[in-house]
Formats: sequence, structure tokens, C-alpha cells
Amino acid sequence: MALDQAIARKLTEIVGVQNAGTEVEARICHSYDASKQSAMPDIVLKPATTEEVSEIVKCANENSIPVVTWAGGSGLSGGAIPLKGGIALDTCRMNRIIEIDTKNMTATVQPGIVVTEFQNEVAKLCLLYPPDPASADFCTIGGNISECAGGLRCIKYGVTRDYVLGLEVVLPDGSITRFGGKMLKSVSGYDVMRLFVGSEGTLGVFTEATLKLIPLPPCVEAFSAFLNDTNLAMELVHEVLSIGELPRAIEFMDRNTMKAVRNHSKFDFPEETGAFLLVEYDGWHSEAVRASAEKAFKVVSAKALQSKFAANQKERDALWAVRKASSPALYSLSSKKLSEDVSVPRTQIGPMLTAINTIEKAYGLTIACFGHAGDGNIHINVIVPEDMDKHDPKIEKMIAEIFERAMELKGTLSGEHGIGNLKAKYMHLEFSEREIELMKSLKKTIDPKGIMNPGKIFV
Amino acid sequence: MALDQAIARKLTEIVGVQNAGTEVEARICHSYDASKQSAMPDIVLKPATTEEVSEIVKCANENSIPVVTWAGGSGLSGGAIPLKGGIALDTCRMNRIIEIDTKNMTATVQPGIVVTEFQNEVAKLCLLYPPDPASADFCTIGGNISECAGGLRCIKYGVTRDYVLGLEVVLPDGSITRFGGKMLKSVSGYDVMRLFVGSEGTLGVFTEATLKLIPLPPCVEAFSAFLNDTNLAMELVHEVLSIGELPRAIEFMDRNTMKAVRNHSKFDFPEETGAFLLVEYDGWHSEAVRASAEKAFKVVSAKALQSKFAANQKERDALWAVRKASSPALYSLSSKKLSEDVSVPRTQIGPMLTAINTIEKAYGLTIACFGHAGDGNIHINVIVPEDMDKHDPKIEKMIAEIFERAMELKGTLSGEHGIGNLKAKYMHLEFSEREIELMKSLKKTIDPKGIMNPGKIFV
Repeated sequence: MALDQAIARKLTEIVGVQNAGTEVEARICHSYDASKQSAMPDIVLKPATTEEVSEIVKCANENSIPVVTWAGGSGLSGGAIPLKGGIALDTCRMNRIIEIDTKNMTATVQPGIVVTEFQNEVAKLCLLYPPDPASADFCTIGGNISECAGGLRCIKYGVTRDYVLGLEVVLPDGSITRFGGKMLKSVSGYDVMRLFVGSEGTLGVFTEATLKLIPLPPCVEAFSAFLNDTNLAMELVHEVLSIGELPRAIEFMDRNTMKAVRNHSKFDFPEETGAFLLVEYDGWHSEAVRASAEKAFKVVSAKALQSKFAANQKERDALWAVRKASSPALYSLSSKKLSEDVSVPRTQIGPMLTAINTIEKAYGLTIACFGHAGDGNIHINVIVPEDMDKHDPKIEKMIAEIFERAMELKGTLSGEHGIGNLKAKYMHLEFSEREIELMKSLKKTIDPKGIMNPGKIFV
Repeated sequence: MALDQAIARKLTEIVGVQNAGTEVEARICHSYDASKQSAMPDIVLKPATTEEVSEIVKCANENSIPVVTWAGGSGLSGGAIPLKGGIALDTCRMNRIIEIDTKNMTATVQPGIVVTEFQNEVAKLCLLYPPDPASADFCTIGGNISECAGGLRCIKYGVTRDYVLGLEVVLPDGSITRFGGKMLKSVSGYDVMRLFVGSEGTLGVFTEATLKLIPLPPCVEAFSAFLNDTNLAMELVHEVLSIGELPRAIEFMDRNTMKAVRNHSKFDFPEETGAFLLVEYDGWHSEAVRASAEKAFKVVSAKALQSKFAANQKERDALWAVRKASSPALYSLSSKKLSEDVSVPRTQIGPMLTAINTIEKAYGLTIACFGHAGDGNIHINVIVPEDMDKHDPKIEKMIAEIFERAMELKGTLSGEHGIGNLKAKYMHLEFSEREIELMKSLKKTIDPKGIMNPGKIFV
């Protein structure tokens, strides 16, 4: 359904002709995201203010036009795909840091700012914004709030939700609302703000956020280890955690991931490596941080094929480079790689990996896993052969089995990517009919016409 | 409106006659809470299982009978008062720890367990449940989740919301639902669970919760200081925080509170004391924790009338005894003391206390303040003379002015006590009509008949 010309003109007037696009080129740029799906919006709008967003949404609501908020486009579950056309509302011009309040340790930002850029600015003031998704260099704060992004440091520092103190939201009827503020504690009325966090663009458009910051810990120590297999790796994760002090990251990679990294990169590690662990501690006193890290290193290195305690920042970067090689290495195996991200109780990572192994053998396809061992969050990469359709029923069946195993282990469909449209059909595996009905009724209450990011979360 | 006899019999059968009470004595015991209000329920029911709760709620919904979940009764905003009669659903028999999972660092509990009792059990396994409201010795986990309790350690560790990983909720229609689990990360569907946290018993009955625990830090250091005035105290709070490492508590008391403490207790401190600060650090390495605390102590003691660094646990307890004397000392001034708990951005504590001083003078009534300086959370105690009605229009006007000042300083009506019925009439000061309408529409969607704790949060 093409957009009515008069409405297109009205929408264009709101943002100005140079910030609206109906030509094919502009629309194509907003037709896809990192989930590698595609659907064309009818118009791309780049508002500069909350008021402009409000006017756009009001007009969309009056005319029942879908609104898909478009930020970094780095989502892996299809959050930014304009499945039903309509408006791609791009927040790229709303990318300012409005204020960094060092005394209250808060920052107020617009949604379009890129996460790393924001983190660098607050770091200059010795402050830390802990959420750190792998896509931080190109994803935005708005997208992070929409998906409740996690990342590498969650075991110690939590996820995006834990850092949102205040939120300005344009509701589906165009109303501008504000919840929270700079307060560390607030229990006035319902916690509507945190219902919006992680709502995947389906309840409103975020136009401003106040985020909690913490003092930037100056001391960091890290080590890595190449191990025989993931079972040993997971045992060691628990031994490390039983030391007491929480590391800020415990990352792992499995045998298939390591094989890909070996073939794709110049890193040198034992041929028989079946698992990789990277553990990082931070804190305020160099001796204390070093003592914790060394204690953990002793435990891990005793059982490792090879291990390395980073002596300085440069060596630490080198350890992380191995971990960060996983995604490009796996993409080099197939451009059709599928990325799932189930999350299970930490003790169930081992059983989940075993289950995945069985599934892998049954289907004769490679599955490579890596992720956040401390959080129980596993990135499951299905290496779909280039000559195979990724919608092949065999693949779909395999994915469903993976989710079923995760549910049996009391896990969740998504640790950080969100449901989007890709996982919507699996929601019934995790939730009862009544639970899904409750979620749908909240959506209906807030967005009665269903204009906000239709086709996401629910089938 | 008395309860229909047949319905009373049916409800009694669900829990067994020994766990139901319609006699006046049983009902009186559930007619009040720490807000010192009173309203009689028609029946008291003490279910033992989720299924019993479900049956009770289903029957209540079918017959439009109010359900007020009753836990510790320690709330200060009226959350447990059966304003419209109906069922007082007492969770006292659902008070078990179902599991402490040391490897996943989670605990699964029933709602009726007392917070301190729970904390002690997990501490035996070297784990910490950080939320620590002042009423921990008699309030329950269920009540804490309902109100999103805070307490003393929030600047470092956050509030109850941050520790709820999983929740079993009986919805107003009697459906048993479950959200979350043991996962540290989950972004499947809407975060309904955290909408329930802090919903003050108005959206459902919590029957089981899975809580996040952290390793119990073995090292603690604390110091206190008696200072000239609160302006100096708040300056020092910021100096302490600028050191970098976050303390786990920064508590303050003002001149009126200190005067009451002096008159009521045996503690010895300088006559001219106008403010008290207590700062506590914790961590994993004794030298590191001590170094942080000593650095902060140096900053504070240089400007103090008198100060004390606790040499051991006994001395630390002695420092906390001074802080904990505040509430009994203020109650000794008047049994009609009113306890408000606004929260403001931390930098606005000073301006808020100045505003309160002006209001105090204008109304000729004593107001004593203490609270959580690190969180911006001020407990404002209005000393209503014994011969004055606490509903005196003058008092009401004064309270409204306090809230208005807090709003001007971008604060919130409640940092941890909740809205209950006492603050419902002030909600419009913090939220726009549209924002309140949104909250009300969520309530209506989840509880269409309005049976869950009627008369709370909204007027």
C-alpha cells in the first residue's frame, strides 16, 4: 500500500524536505538491518526534535500508518525492519549529548547517539556507562534501550535497563510523556519506564534518556586460556566465580568457533583447543584487582593447554582481539550464518552446549557457539551453507529444537537480541497463552491502532 | 458491605477453617499498617500454596471482592490497608526459602519470608541479598517486591527491582503466570515482571520470586562524622563520591534529628552538631577497602566537629546505632510523626533541605530529616504535636508544599515507601494527566474489575 500523496507531503513538511525521502534510494537504506531481512518503508523521516517526532506519530496514528523507529540498524532480530511499510523514523539527527552531570553521575542524551561515542565522552570525565554490546561502535543508545542491550560486562554491571533513570517517550497518539529523571530511587506509580525498555519500538518512540553512570574504575586485569573443551571451561567459570569477587567479563568460545578463528586469523594457539576463556577484572586498587585476577588465573591456567595473563593494556587488547575475531571468522564460513542468542541459567551452559552438539550431529550442519559465560548468554551461530536457503525447513526445524532445549533448561529465547519478527513464532515455547495474552493486551492498551513497529514480538 | 455468607464459606474452604478468620480479632490484626491508618477487611485468609491463592483470587474476581495482600504490614504509605474491605490475603504461611542455588547465585523464595531471615540464610553461604530497608527485621520479600524497597546500600547495589530475576504472579482473574527465571539476561517479550515490581499489590499477588544474589564482600569499613550543618555535609558527600570508588552507604541526619537523638539517647556528641554523616565501604581486599575508606575519612574528618573511624565490627555497630536511633528518637517527640520520603537528584538534597527549613519556619512546626544522602532519598519527618490532628488542613498544606518543592527540584514523591493511598492525591504534581491516564489504563487492562488493592496509587 503506497502512502497517500497528501499525507506524504504533510509528513515531509514536519521535518523539512531535506530530511524526508520517498525516493527508492533513501527507502532502500532503511529497508534492512543486521538480521539481513528487507522490507521497504514508504517514507524516511529524520526529525530533529521531540516535537517533530510527536507530530509525525500523531499524523501516523490518525492515518493508521506504521512507524518503525530506525537507529543504528544493527539489530539481529529484525527490530528495524519496516515489515508493513509506512514510516522509517530515523533518529540520526537526534544524536546529541544534552548534558553530562558529573555530580549526579548522570547523562542526558538523545536516542541517536552511537554508544561508543557516548562512552568515550563520559570516560573523559572519568565516568563509565557500563552496557557494552559488541556492536557499540555503530549501535545507538535509542536502539540499546529499545532492545535492552547487554554485552560483555553484565555479570558485574547489569544490562541497559539498570542504567535508564529517565525516559522521554512519544506515545502512539503523539503525546509527549516523561518518566523518571536523575533520581537513583523512584517508586511513584507504575514503573512504566522499564516497560518501555526492551519493548522493541512497539510502544512508542524514545526521544531523550537520562542514564546512570558510575565512576570509571582505573584498574583492569585480564587473562585468557585455551582449553581442551567447553565442559572444562564451564567448570572453571564456576571455580572462578567461587573465588568471590565478580569479574566484569567471562567470555567463552567453543571448538567450532576456535577452528574458524584459527583458519581465518593469524592467532597462534594449540591445535587441539576446544574452548577459549577470557576473564577480566576491574576495580580501584591495582594490587587488589591484580590479586583477584591472579587468583583466578592460577585456577584456570593449571588446567589450560595454554594461558596468558596480560601484562599491560596492549596485551589485554591482544587477548580481546582473539575473542572479537569470532564473528568475522564465522561469517567467513558462510555469509548466511544465523545468529541466535539464547540465555540459560549459568549452570546450564554446559548442558545447553551438549544439546547443541547432539542437534548439530543430527542435522549435519555446523553450529559454533561463543558468548558471555558469566551471564549464561550463548550466541549460537548456525553456519548455513552458501548453497542452502536459510529458510529451508530443515534449518527452521533445527532452530526450533535449539529453542526447545533452551526452554527445557529453563532458559529464554533471547538474552539480548530481542524477539523482533524472527523469534515471534517461538514465543509460545517460553510463555503460556495467558502470559502472551497479557503482553498483547498491554500493547493494545498503549498502541490501540497497532502502528508502532507492527509484526514484531507477536505473531 | 459485609461479605456474603456463602462466599465466606467458600473462601474458608480453600484455605481450611484454621487459616481463615472472620471474627473481629483476626480482622483487626489486618486492618492497619505502619502508616497508622485503619480499615477493616471482611475476612482474613492465609493460603499455603499458589493454587490456593489462585482459587481465592478467582472467587474474589467473580464476586468483585477486593483483595489486599498482607505481608509484614510495615509499609508507610498504606499499601496493606483494606480500604474497601474484602479479603486480607496474608502470605505469612508462604514463608519458605524454596532453594538457594549457590552456583547460579540465585534464591527462590515464597513472598512471606522476612527479609533479614532470608539475608541471614544466604549469608551462611557467603552470598549477599543487597536490598536492605530499615524494616528488614519484620518486612517481607513479597512486600519489598510490591513496593520496590530500597534501603541503605542502594548507591552501590541498587534497589529490589535490580534483584528480581523471576516472578510467579497470580493475576486478578486467578491465572498463574511466571516471568523470568534464573537468567541474568532475558529480553523475551515485554518486561511485565518489572511492571509488577513496585505495583503495590494493585496488579496481582506474588507467590514466588527468584532473586539475584552476589558474593558477600568480606571486608567492611565505616566512619562517621558530626558536622556543623547539612550544607557542609552535602558538600562532603560529593567530595567523598569524587574519590571514585562508590561506598555502599552514605547516610545523613540533620540538626533536628540530631537534637532528638541527643535528648532521647545516651550518645555523646558536640552540642552544636547540625549534621551527621555515616559512610561505609565494602569489598574483597582489606587493604583496598581500608584505603578507600581512609581517603574519604581524611576528607570528611578535616571539616568535622568530631569524627570516628571504626576499628572493628563492634565500633561499626556503634556508629550505626547513632543513625538507627533517629526513628525512635523522633517518635519520642510525637507519636503522630509523619514520615515522607521524597527523592531528588543528589545535588538537590541541599536545596531541598533549605526549602524544608523555610517551610518549617513558615508553619511553626518541627521537621526532622535524615536518609540516604548517596541516593538523594530524604526521609522527612513532620513532628505533629500530640494535641494536633494529623489531618489538620495546615499539615496537609505543608505536606503539599514539601512535595511541590521536591517537584521543582526534579524529584519524585517517593523514593522507597510507595504512593499507597496517602500520596495518591499528589500524583498529579509528578505526572501529567496523560501519564496518569496511561498508568490507569494499564491497571484497567490487567485488573478490569479493580479488585486488587483498590484505592491505592490513584485517587
